[in-house]
Amino acid sequence: MSTKEGPQASRRGPYAKSTERRQAILTAAHAVFAARGYRGGSLQDVADRAGMSQTSLLHYFPSKSQLLLAVLNWRDSITGDGTAPPDPEESLVDAVLRQARFNEDVPGVLELYTVLCGEAVTEGHPGRPYFTNRFEELRRSYTRQLRELAGEGRLRPGVDPEVAAASLIGLWDGIQTQWLLAPDKVDMAGCLRGYLELILLPE
Amino acid sequence: MSTKEGPQASRRGPYAKSTERRQAILTAAHAVFAARGYRGGSLQDVADRAGMSQTSLLHYFPSKSQLLLAVLNWRDSITGDGTAPPDPEESLVDAVLRQARFNEDVPGVLELYTVLCGEAVTEGHPGRPYFTNRFEELRRSYTRQLRELAGEGRLRPGVDPEVAAASLIGLWDGIQTQWLLAPDKVDMAGCLRGYLELILLPE
Repeated sequence: MSTKEGPQASRRGPYAKSTERRQAILTAAHAVFAARGYRGGSLQDVADRAGMSQTSLLHYFPSKSQLLLAVLNWRDSITGDGTAPPDPEESLVDAVLRQARFNEDVPGVLELYTVLCGEAVTEGHPGRPYFTNRFEELRRSYTRQLRELAGEGRLRPGVDPEVAAASLIGLWDGIQTQWLLAPDKVDMAGCLRGYLELILLPE
Repeated sequence: MSTKEGPQASRRGPYAKSTERRQAILTAAHAVFAARGYRGGSLQDVADRAGMSQTSLLHYFPSKSQLLLAVLNWRDSITGDGTAPPDPEESLVDAVLRQARFNEDVPGVLELYTVLCGEAVTEGHPGRPYFTNRFEELRRSYTRQLRELAGEGRLRPGVDPEVAAASLIGLWDGIQTQWLLAPDKVDMAGCLRGYLELILLPE
């Protein structure tokens, strides 16, 4: 998703303008929800930060919950949603560590994820279906990859691919939270590598 | 912990009455913060739920952040804070699985923990020091236990006690979140047992 705006932007007319304003709203909403959560951050906060009225904002995103889903999808477009088919040239370990290192450079995105994912376990939270589906797809994707590795004799005997998939995702989320609270004391990539080295056998 | 109001309540005098009211506020705040988070839940919501005025509530807990810390400490008194010295008669695996099974029976307590821990990664959240310290103490406690097991030759060669301690805590938190969203699809105790079986060698 490119958001480049060259000198030709004004020549591109109302459509480009509308894209710019949507983008400004998403950026503002990302910051507000990351700092205060979905329930704690108001549409007025987002409008203020985007430099527009709440009425203008509602023209682009008719409700706060629609804005939340747009922010979550936008986040996926930045970090990858983790459910894209794996690159056949890259090992599971390399892919996980590459993503983990990338994430260390975007703490604001991790913060948004952590705050919203925590809130989403509550009844009636508009992000709940998003996170429920996300975890289900991630578990399916990693289970598939681990089953393939098991077929190649690369999974440690006794490791259940489904349990290991859920555990890898859980460890990743949990260690991110610890890292956000104490970045100097927690080695995110080291914990992920340690886990993968436990479940995989060397080639 | 009873909040019963029997005919004897008045006979127990003002101290007992005060304890009861504090307890009623904590129960109400637990429910409100678990459902809406700290930022999303208001003192008025808590007062309404406890059946008293906000002024009365502030008599017992002078600020919302003090109420939050009281709720977190109360939660620790229910579930154990995980940093008590381990029972020398109980193995690490048994202790972790016992706690995980206990937690499955108190989803509301897990929900509160998950929502507040997620919020706490944000700047200026009054729960941030609590969670930062909690993770630090937990990492220290599990590192110590794993080092002892290493001394007995029970830790798999190559496993770093510090990395494994942070990973165990991370996995536990992360898998709890997945379980809260899809209790039928995630085997919390199975994931924890799987991890411990990977890092420990049989006796």
